[in-house]
Amino acid sequence: MSRPPGPREPTTLYLQIADSIAAPIRSGTLASGERIPSVRELSRRHGVSLGTVVQAYRVLEDSRLIEARPRSGYFVAPRPSGPPEPELSNPPASSLAVDVSSLAERVMQLAHDPKCISFGAACPSPELFSEDLVRRAVRRAAEHQGAALTRYAIGPGHDVLRRAIARHALGLGCQLDARDIVVTNSCLESITLCLRSVTQPGDVVALESPTLFSFLVILESLGLRALEIPTHPRTGMSLDALQLAFDTQPVKVVLTVPTLSNPIGACMPVAERQRLAQMVTQRRVPLIEDVLCNDLAQSDEHRNAVRAFDATGHVMLCGSFSKTVAPGLRLGWVEAGRWSSDVARLKQATSGAQAAVLEVALAALLTRPGVEAGRRRLRTALAARLDEAREIIARHFPTSTRVTNPASGLFLWVELPREVDALALFHACLEEHIVIAPGTMFSATDHFRHCIRLGLGGEWDEPHRQALRRVGELAGRLERRRARRPPEFEARTCATACPGACVDAAG
Amino acid sequence: MSRPPGPREPTTLYLQIADSIAAPIRSGTLASGERIPSVRELSRRHGVSLGTVVQAYRVLEDSRLIEARPRSGYFVAPRPSGPPEPELSNPPASSLAVDVSSLAERVMQLAHDPKCISFGAACPSPELFSEDLVRRAVRRAAEHQGAALTRYAIGPGHDVLRRAIARHALGLGCQLDARDIVVTNSCLESITLCLRSVTQPGDVVALESPTLFSFLVILESLGLRALEIPTHPRTGMSLDALQLAFDTQPVKVVLTVPTLSNPIGACMPVAERQRLAQMVTQRRVPLIEDVLCNDLAQSDEHRNAVRAFDATGHVMLCGSFSKTVAPGLRLGWVEAGRWSSDVARLKQATSGAQAAVLEVALAALLTRPGVEAGRRRLRTALAARLDEAREIIARHFPTSTRVTNPASGLFLWVELPREVDALALFHACLEEHIVIAPGTMFSATDHFRHCIRLGLGGEWDEPHRQALRRVGELAGRLERRRARRPPEFEARTCATACPGACVDAAG
Repeated sequence: MSRPPGPREPTTLYLQIADSIAAPIRSGTLASGERIPSVRELSRRHGVSLGTVVQAYRVLEDSRLIEARPRSGYFVAPRPSGPPEPELSNPPASSLAVDVSSLAERVMQLAHDPKCISFGAACPSPELFSEDLVRRAVRRAAEHQGAALTRYAIGPGHDVLRRAIARHALGLGCQLDARDIVVTNSCLESITLCLRSVTQPGDVVALESPTLFSFLVILESLGLRALEIPTHPRTGMSLDALQLAFDTQPVKVVLTVPTLSNPIGACMPVAERQRLAQMVTQRRVPLIEDVLCNDLAQSDEHRNAVRAFDATGHVMLCGSFSKTVAPGLRLGWVEAGRWSSDVARLKQATSGAQAAVLEVALAALLTRPGVEAGRRRLRTALAARLDEAREIIARHFPTSTRVTNPASGLFLWVELPREVDALALFHACLEEHIVIAPGTMFSATDHFRHCIRLGLGGEWDEPHRQALRRVGELAGRLERRRARRPPEFEARTCATACPGACVDAAG
Repeated sequence: MSRPPGPREPTTLYLQIADSIAAPIRSGTLASGERIPSVRELSRRHGVSLGTVVQAYRVLEDSRLIEARPRSGYFVAPRPSGPPEPELSNPPASSLAVDVSSLAERVMQLAHDPKCISFGAACPSPELFSEDLVRRAVRRAAEHQGAALTRYAIGPGHDVLRRAIARHALGLGCQLDARDIVVTNSCLESITLCLRSVTQPGDVVALESPTLFSFLVILESLGLRALEIPTHPRTGMSLDALQLAFDTQPVKVVLTVPTLSNPIGACMPVAERQRLAQMVTQRRVPLIEDVLCNDLAQSDEHRNAVRAFDATGHVMLCGSFSKTVAPGLRLGWVEAGRWSSDVARLKQATSGAQAAVLEVALAALLTRPGVEAGRRRLRTALAARLDEAREIIARHFPTSTRVTNPASGLFLWVELPREVDALALFHACLEEHIVIAPGTMFSATDHFRHCIRLGLGGEWDEPHRQALRRVGELAGRLERRRARRPPEFEARTCATACPGACVDAAG
C-alpha cells in the first residue's frame, strides 16, 4: 500500500532523499548504468510518501544524475567519464615575498562587468537566494531595532548575532562562547585582523598552493612572505609537507581553507583535520582557518572545522555568510581563540563596529526555520552546475586537460596542457567578452601558468554553456598553435628555410 | 508695517537668524549686557516675518545666549566668564613608539555602559537624530534596491553614494571626482587604510598633541612612531612646530584633524590651512586629513578642508557621517588623492565592499532637502550643551581649572590643577558610576596626567548636570588632599611625629 503524500512531511524532505542518492553517485559508489531503488521501494525504506520520492527523483533527473528507462525503472545516468583530476601541487620549498600583479584586480573588475560572460568570480548569483526573505529581515530589523539606526555602535557586535553565530558554529563541530566572537565586514577582514594580530612584516605564512589570490594581496599589504605548501586537489594541504616546513622554516602562522579551498575546491579528510589541530598545538603556531564555504560541503564530515579538534585555542576561526545566506549584507565573523581580545581591540580601533541593523537582520536569517533547507538547495544547485560544466570540459577542452572534481562549491580548477598559456587564453577569451581567472593569480610562484579557475556560482544559462565550450575551443586552438610551432631554435632556422610554415604557425 | 509670517519661508530660516546672532555672541563680538536688535528691526533687516524672528529669539533664549528684559527688549545674557582656556601643548621633540594601555579600552567600554552616567565617549546621542528618517531611508533602499541584498558586492562603493559624497565635499570646499572615492566602514578605517598605504613599520607620523586615542591605537597596531606636535586649543596644530619637525625629523606622514580636533576641539584658521597644504606639497609628505566633524563647525571658514587648498593630491581626505547624519549606518569614506588606487585596492583586498543597501540609504539621507537644516539643529543643540557645561565647570571645578571653548562639537578638554591626578579622578568618579576620559589616553607622552576629556554629545539631562558638578567636587577634593599632603620626604618624617595628620591626609 502506497502512503499518500504526507502533509506533515517537511517540504525539504525530498531534497534529503535526493542527496542520499546523489552522494553515492558522485563519489562513484553507485556506478553509471546501475539500477536504483524504485519509487515504491524507497518510499517504504524511508517511510515517506510516494510523492516525496517522485519529487526527489525529479531533482536527480534535472541534475542528470539518474535517468528513467520506460518500464524498467530508474538507473544511474551515464556519468561523463570526465577528465582526470590534477595532481598534488609542487611549489618551491622556500618562502617568497609576494608581489601581486595588477592582473588579479583587472580580472575581478571584468568578472563583475555586466557586458561580459563571467567565469572570473567565485560568488553565487543573486537568484540562488531569496531576495524577499532578506528584504523582510532588513525591514523587520529597521522596525524593531530602530534605535540602533541612530545609536553610535561600539564593541564586537550585536549580542543577538554573536549568539546566532555561536549556534551556527555547532554545525561546524565547534562550541564557541558568543562573547569571544567579533563581527567583521567580511571573512577577508577577519583573516586580515588575525594576521595583523600574530605577525610582523617579514614573517612567513604557510598556505595552500594554489591559494586564493586575495590572501596573496593581504600578505603583500602586510609585508609577509608566502610559503606555499603542496596541496592535493581532493584532500587539500599536505600535512607531511607542512610538518617538513615546520621543521625547516620559521613558519609564523598557517592560513588554510580546509573545506572547499579556493581555487581547487579540496576538502581535507577528518583525520587530517585532527592531525592538523595537533600539529599547530604542539608547535604553538597559530592556525587561521577560513570556514567560509563549510556550509557548501556535501558531507557532514567536511563541514567540521579543524577548530573542532583544537582544545588549546590555537585555531582562529574566520567565517562569513556572504556566500551562503545573504551576499549583500556583507558581514563576517572571527573567533580568534587565545588571540580573541587582540583581534577585538584591533577591529574596534582600526575599523569600528558594523551596522547593528544588518547584524540583527542576519541573525534573524540565520535562526529562521528554513535556513538548513536553503543551504541544501544551494548545494544541490551548485553541484548540478559543476557536473554540467565538467561534462562540457570533457567534450570541448583539449584532450589532456585535467579538472578538479569537488563535491560542491563555486568553482572548478582546470589544468590545461602545458602548451596553453593561461594568460594568452585569458586575452583570447576577453576578446569574445568571456572572463576567466588565469592560474598565475593564485600563487606567488609561476607554477600555474597553464591553469585557470572557472567560477560557476554566477549566472548559468545557455549563453554561459556556449561560452564555456568556446573557452575550450580557444584553449585547443592555443595548444595546436604552440604544438605546431617548432622550438625557438628551429623556428629561427626555419625562418629562412620555410617562411610559409612559420607564417602559418604564427597566424 | 510688520510682515505677516511668510508661508513660503523655509522652516529652518529661524535657525539661520538665530545663528547670525549666536555666532557673534559666542565669539565675544557681542558682549554680555549689550542690546540686540528688536524683533521688528531684525524682521525688517532680514526681510522675514515677525514670527520667524520670535522663533529665532526663543532658540537663543533656550540656549541662554540672550534674555528678554520687560519693556526694554532683548540683551546678550551674562556670559559665564568661564575658566581660561588651556595653552599651547608642549610635547617632546622626538618621536615615541606607541604603547597604548588597556585604559582606553576600559574607558570606552564603561562609556557605553547603561549603568553609568557617561562623559567618556565623543558620540552624539540618538535623540539628536530622527530615527524615523533613517528607518524610512533603510526601508526604501531595501524596497527599491532589493537586488543589492542578494548580490555579492565588490568595488569601491555604490555610485549613488559616491556621487552624494562628492556633492557633500563641495561644502568642504573640495571638488572630488566621485570615481576616486572609496566607501569604508568608518572614518577610522579610512585613516588606517591611508596609513597602511604610505607607511612601513618604524615610520614617523606627525600628529596633534593631545590627539585622539584611537589614532594612537592605530599607530601602535601598525608599528608606527608618534611625533606629537605642539597644538593650540583654539587654532590647532602649530605649523611652525611642524615645519621644525619637517626640518629635523624623518616625518613620513602628517595625520591631522583641522576642524574640531579630538580631544581639544581646535579649529585651524583658514590661512593656516592654506599654509599647511603648501607645506606638505613642498615636502611631498602625504597629509591624512580627518574631516569627520567639519559639518559641526559653526563657521563656514572652518568647514573648508585643507584639501581645498591642495592642487597636487598630497592630502588624503577621510570622513564619515556617523556623528552628523546617521550614527547607526556605520559608513565612512576616503578620497586619497594620488594614493587613491592604492587605498581602493587595499580596502577591496583586506575588508571588501560595504553593504549596498546601507550605502543607498545613506545617499538618500545626504541628498534629501532638509539635511542642512538637520546639521544646523545639531550644531545649535551641541553648542548650547557646551555652554552649559562650561558654566558648571566655572562654578564647580577647582579655581585654577582651564577648559577649552570650542564653538561646537562633542567634547570639552579640561586642564585641572596639576595636583589632580586624572587617573585618580577617573577612579573616584567610577565609584559613583560616572565615566570621564583621563588625559593620559590622548598622548604617547605623560603630559596630560592632570587633564580630562568630557564627552557631551551623549544624553544631557538633570542627572548629567548633577554628575558633572560632582566631577568638579571630586576634583576639588583630590586637589585639596594633595595640597594638604606634604611632599614625600616630609611625609616620611611626619609618619613618626604626627600620625594623626597623615591619616587625615591619606584618609
